[in-house]
Amino acid sequence: MPAGTWVTFGPGVTEAEAENVVVLAYESGVNLFDVSEAHCGPRAEVELGRILQRRGWKRSSYVVCTKIFWNTKSDERGLSRKHIIESVKASLARLQLSYIDVVIIHKADPMCPMEEVVRAMHHVVCQGWAMYWGTARWTPGEVMEAYSNCRQFNCTTPVCEQAEYHLFCRDKAELYMPELYNKIGVGLMAWSPLTMGLISGKFDEAGFPLISRSSFKSKRSSYSWTEDETTNATSKETYAWIKERLEPEELRRQQERQREISLVAERLGCTVPQLAVAWCLKNESVQCLLLGATSPAQLYESIQSLQLVPKLNATTMTDLERILDNKPTRPPIVSTLALR
Amino acid sequence: MPAGTWVTFGPGVTEAEAENVVVLAYESGVNLFDVSEAHCGPRAEVELGRILQRRGWKRSSYVVCTKIFWNTKSDERGLSRKHIIESVKASLARLQLSYIDVVIIHKADPMCPMEEVVRAMHHVVCQGWAMYWGTARWTPGEVMEAYSNCRQFNCTTPVCEQAEYHLFCRDKAELYMPELYNKIGVGLMAWSPLTMGLISGKFDEAGFPLISRSSFKSKRSSYSWTEDETTNATSKETYAWIKERLEPEELRRQQERQREISLVAERLGCTVPQLAVAWCLKNESVQCLLLGATSPAQLYESIQSLQLVPKLNATTMTDLERILDNKPTRPPIVSTLALR
Amino acid sequence: MPAGTWVTFGPGVTEAEAENVVVLAYESGVNLFDVSEAHCGPRAEVELGRILQRRGWKRSSYVVCTKIFWNTKSDERGLSRKHIIESVKASLARLQLSYIDVVIIHKADPMCPMEEVVRAMHHVVCQGWAMYWGTARWTPGEVMEAYSNCRQFNCTTPVCEQAEYHLFCRDKAELYMPELYNKIGVGLMAWSPLTMGLISGKFDEAGFPLISRSSFKSKRSSYSWTEDETTNATSKETYAWIKERLEPEELRRQQERQREISLVAERLGCTVPQLAVAWCLKNESVQCLLLGATSPAQLYESIQSLQLVPKLNATTMTDLERILDNKPTRPPIVSTLALR
Amino acid sequence: MPAGTWVTFGPGVTEAEAENVVVLAYESGVNLFDVSEAHCGPRAEVELGRILQRRGWKRSSYVVCTKIFWNTKSDERGLSRKHIIESVKASLARLQLSYIDVVIIHKADPMCPMEEVVRAMHHVVCQGWAMYWGTARWTPGEVMEAYSNCRQFNCTTPVCEQAEYHLFCRDKAELYMPELYNKIGVGLMAWSPLTMGLISGKFDEAGFPLISRSSFKSKRSSYSWTEDETTNATSKETYAWIKERLEPEELRRQQERQREISLVAERLGCTVPQLAVAWCLKNESVQCLLLGATSPAQLYESIQSLQLVPKLNATTMTDLERILDNKPTRPPIVSTLALR
Repeated sequence: MPAGTWVTFGPGVTEAEAENVVVLAYESGVNLFDVSEAHCGPRAEVELGRILQRRGWKRSSYVVCTKIFWNTKSDERGLSRKHIIESVKASLARLQLSYIDVVIIHKADPMCPMEEVVRAMHHVVCQGWAMYWGTARWTPGEVMEAYSNCRQFNCTTPVCEQAEYHLFCRDKAELYMPELYNKIGVGLMAWSPLTMGLISGKFDEAGFPLISRSSFKSKRSSYSWTEDETTNATSKETYAWIKERLEPEELRRQQERQREISLVAERLGCTVPQLAVAWCLKNESVQCLLLGATSPAQLYESIQSLQLVPKLNATTMTDLERILDNKPTRPPIVSTLALR
Repeated sequence: MPAGTWVTFGPGVTEAEAENVVVLAYESGVNLFDVSEAHCGPRAEVELGRILQRRGWKRSSYVVCTKIFWNTKSDERGLSRKHIIESVKASLARLQLSYIDVVIIHKADPMCPMEEVVRAMHHVVCQGWAMYWGTARWTPGEVMEAYSNCRQFNCTTPVCEQAEYHLFCRDKAELYMPELYNKIGVGLMAWSPLTMGLISGKFDEAGFPLISRSSFKSKRSSYSWTEDETTNATSKETYAWIKERLEPEELRRQQERQREISLVAERLGCTVPQLAVAWCLKNESVQCLLLGATSPAQLYESIQSLQLVPKLNATTMTDLERILDNKPTRPPIVSTLALR
Repeated sequence: MPAGTWVTFGPGVTEAEAENVVVLAYESGVNLFDVSEAHCGPRAEVELGRILQRRGWKRSSYVVCTKIFWNTKSDERGLSRKHIIESVKASLARLQLSYIDVVIIHKADPMCPMEEVVRAMHHVVCQGWAMYWGTARWTPGEVMEAYSNCRQFNCTTPVCEQAEYHLFCRDKAELYMPELYNKIGVGLMAWSPLTMGLISGKFDEAGFPLISRSSFKSKRSSYSWTEDETTNATSKETYAWIKERLEPEELRRQQERQREISLVAERLGCTVPQLAVAWCLKNESVQCLLLGATSPAQLYESIQSLQLVPKLNATTMTDLERILDNKPTRPPIVSTLALR
Repeated sequence: MPAGTWVTFGPGVTEAEAENVVVLAYESGVNLFDVSEAHCGPRAEVELGRILQRRGWKRSSYVVCTKIFWNTKSDERGLSRKHIIESVKASLARLQLSYIDVVIIHKADPMCPMEEVVRAMHHVVCQGWAMYWGTARWTPGEVMEAYSNCRQFNCTTPVCEQAEYHLFCRDKAELYMPELYNKIGVGLMAWSPLTMGLISGKFDEAGFPLISRSSFKSKRSSYSWTEDETTNATSKETYAWIKERLEPEELRRQQERQREISLVAERLGCTVPQLAVAWCLKNESVQCLLLGATSPAQLYESIQSLQLVPKLNATTMTDLERILDNKPTRPPIVSTLALR
């Protein structure tokens, strides 16, 4: 089980509500706060900064993660040394902190030389602006490329990859992240958007929780994100998009899975979101899990999941595996040798 | 086509006029400003600094390049760690910026060890005084030497070489820069003095536009700059020098080329300077093009050239090639093996 | 003989008394002050800082060592880049110094990648926060791992290992430290808790001086510290623990050794603690010896030991060896080759 | 001929006189000022600092060199990272400069690991406290060791060795320095104490100029300095020492040489000190020559020597060689192969 859990600083919440969630988290032992401009605009950093200032907690008792976002459209497009440095400085100013614990680069930029990226992140660490750096939504190959550039140029290596992980999105976390962790020490910071949707009861008439399009597409295939998925992945349009494209048969099966999972939760005496969180925590490859919450009640419900983990015994896990029917497997390696 | 275009901050212009050019450029999407002490004295940096202060544009929305000049005559002669650091600090003070985007070393100094140069430029980048560094008027061999010293001492590699490129000066940009770009990632920032002369209508009675001496000398030969070319390359004396030395026959052919190019421009419905700019932009090796302008009107005319690029079809390009008759080719490699 | 001696800034002493000890030490030529949060809380650093401020001695005339402690229980558990940097900054603030001479990491953390540790310590040195770094209670294997990581990542290597060394705890200092010093330049900063107990006359009814549990366990075995030994190693409970576990026979022998050592001291005209200190200094592998003192009288007695060192001739050393009967030897290497 | 000449900031001179010398030097094109604590105490740095402040010359128009001295006797004995950093910071404060041009380590310390020295000097350069670093009174082997440590740890290499060089002390400068310069780029900053004595007319009754003991001992032998030579090398006691130890025959020959050199000077229409300076400058291995002067008149006389250099034709040089009879030669390499 991972050493800690996380709270995503959510959008659409007043500062007073946000403070309540942050305080409950901190007092419950959740000590990592993840904010990121793209999800909630610069407001999240500004508000978390103010809350931390007001509370005056010891700096070493909490961990702050934020992201470097970049786009391909605006004037300042692309990832670059300049953009990395400007972003980090702006985040530090908004957060009113002397350093960020983990600065995460959201998506790799194939147009920017990896050497430039790793030298810039090393600079950010050497300046004392960040303690560590990590990645989000990078393919395992991109993470490996960053790592080998760090070794070549004697730069600080990344410590984590932030990736989506939940009942319906398993490939990357289960197939590739354990290898990255064992080989180069890059841990998995799992991001579980499913729970947000399930907790907030925002169900679609077809029974769809608020998950992103990619969850479906990536089933049993190698994980890849396309440009348009990075925004509004949980919006109404996404589900409309999914329903239009999924076969009626697949839609029916998804609703059936949803129903069966509810029965398992009922049997365990918990809610579906709690089951979903506990199921994520059960995976030893999850070095930490980001939980989204917009109210203390939501967060409290998620934290309760910790007690559920030991109850997920072999039988229950096998049951869930059968219901989900999406256990990721690597495609067989067809040896050209064997074909001769 | 290159991602952006550039404006050289010109001499002999009042600060109000300069501001008008800078504002038009910025609002037209030209976001790189190149200033350099040698061409216009420290005034250019001071004035650009004041304009940027007054305008208050977001720092990440524009790019500032400046140069490190050195000489062989004065008290403080030569390129050295001391001169590099002093120059950059002085430029930062004049520009009132916390960093320069690209610091460019104008000419290599064979008397200064390359290790000293690359370590000093790495220092400049690590101190946060510059985001990148580049070169201007270096031979491909000097750029390669800098690059291999960077690799040996784990220093930041240069990102660009600023070189003259126009209808009558093609060797370096067309023969050598693509190789540097592909092998070591050094892009071409083309500097096109031709357009300045053509635009401003400063023609010589022999029909010579305001181009530098070296343009002629370097024809089909490997590119080399000699000391005396670095100053006043566009002055009257230069043309006097050229005319004295060129054969009458060559002078006549140059006037003929000039006339034929005018006809092509007429056919395309543009001015000769516009054709010259479009012809430069057509070359995919040009990562960016520096345009000089002393008035908004001049700049506007140059920017219009962008629309001309698609019109430069195969037929027109072949025509121009025939007129110019200066397509650079590498000297054949005489293999000692073949001679046996 | 080592070039200098050391004073441990002791707990349970008023600031005025502490100042007297520090001044006597400084004036007697003892110029290294070792303070560490874990033994005496942050108070030691604060008080030493105030004393140094008041005295105004030249900064280059004394040496200050402090430690980075970490634990496995609290919120901020484990060694990490963040913890290292936070600890050093906090120590600097408490000590009111611009740099610490030697920052020592107390115990290695098998959960933290060694690369992270050596890069963080290199950062601490490069920032000017420390002149050198060292270790305390690391196994020779851990020190070697740190060293080889430093070589791999071109980081500053550690200069010393702080280890317990006295009449009843000899293995690490005598068997392993000389090799580390010769191979990788890591010196031994010996810490001799025995003298504290013997000097203060805190004897147990069984004749036990105030020494730590580990002294006995490590006899002739490879040196290893377990978690619970790091706190209160000299407390009453420890001795109760020892007496319960030691065989009655072993207890009797320990009392006999104690008696015989007293006779040697008597013959040399010194106290047992003085003999103990001199015996440590006699070992050429001891680059420096940390002496604990809570009063000027105690310190004065210890310093007198320096005059005793030349008197420890071959006969006396042989006598002591016979009495102690604990000369460490390496286990014979059983070659699998020899067994064939 | 070297690119510049130097002025040693002398002791025993009022600040007003010193300022006159410095101003004359600067205005005559001598732009390097060498001060060093050991020769004249911290006063030289303080006074030069004040003069430079008052004059307000452009920082890039002059070069300041100072030394790191260390001893084997005091409390703070030995060269170490701490001593290097403390020394440089103290020099910067005394000089009121933001950086020193060349920080020179006076003598190598066999007790301090060379890795520690080169990492500390690299730190000094990276902090911007110095532009370059060099050595003084190091053997060629020590300089090579420093260089190879720099290469191993990717540190900035030293740029010069300051060594004694004059008519009676030639071995190091003529036999070993050219090789160091060609192989690793370490130039020779020659220090010519002879001229000081000759200029000031401080002659001994035996005709000895004020030169150091080592000048004689090192004749045709490999160059080595012993501890006691570092202080008061030009004092009366030294000459007493020399006269006592030299054979009467050798004394007579030295007086004869002195007389013959005077005749050569007379023939050239210059003084003996001027001839001595010109003879040093004639050597192409001398990248720069340090001239000591306590008055503008002395300095003026030395500067005049520049005009003498071209007059030192082959005939005159051969004459001088015959008179001196001390042309250094390498000891023949006796090959063990040849002996077989």
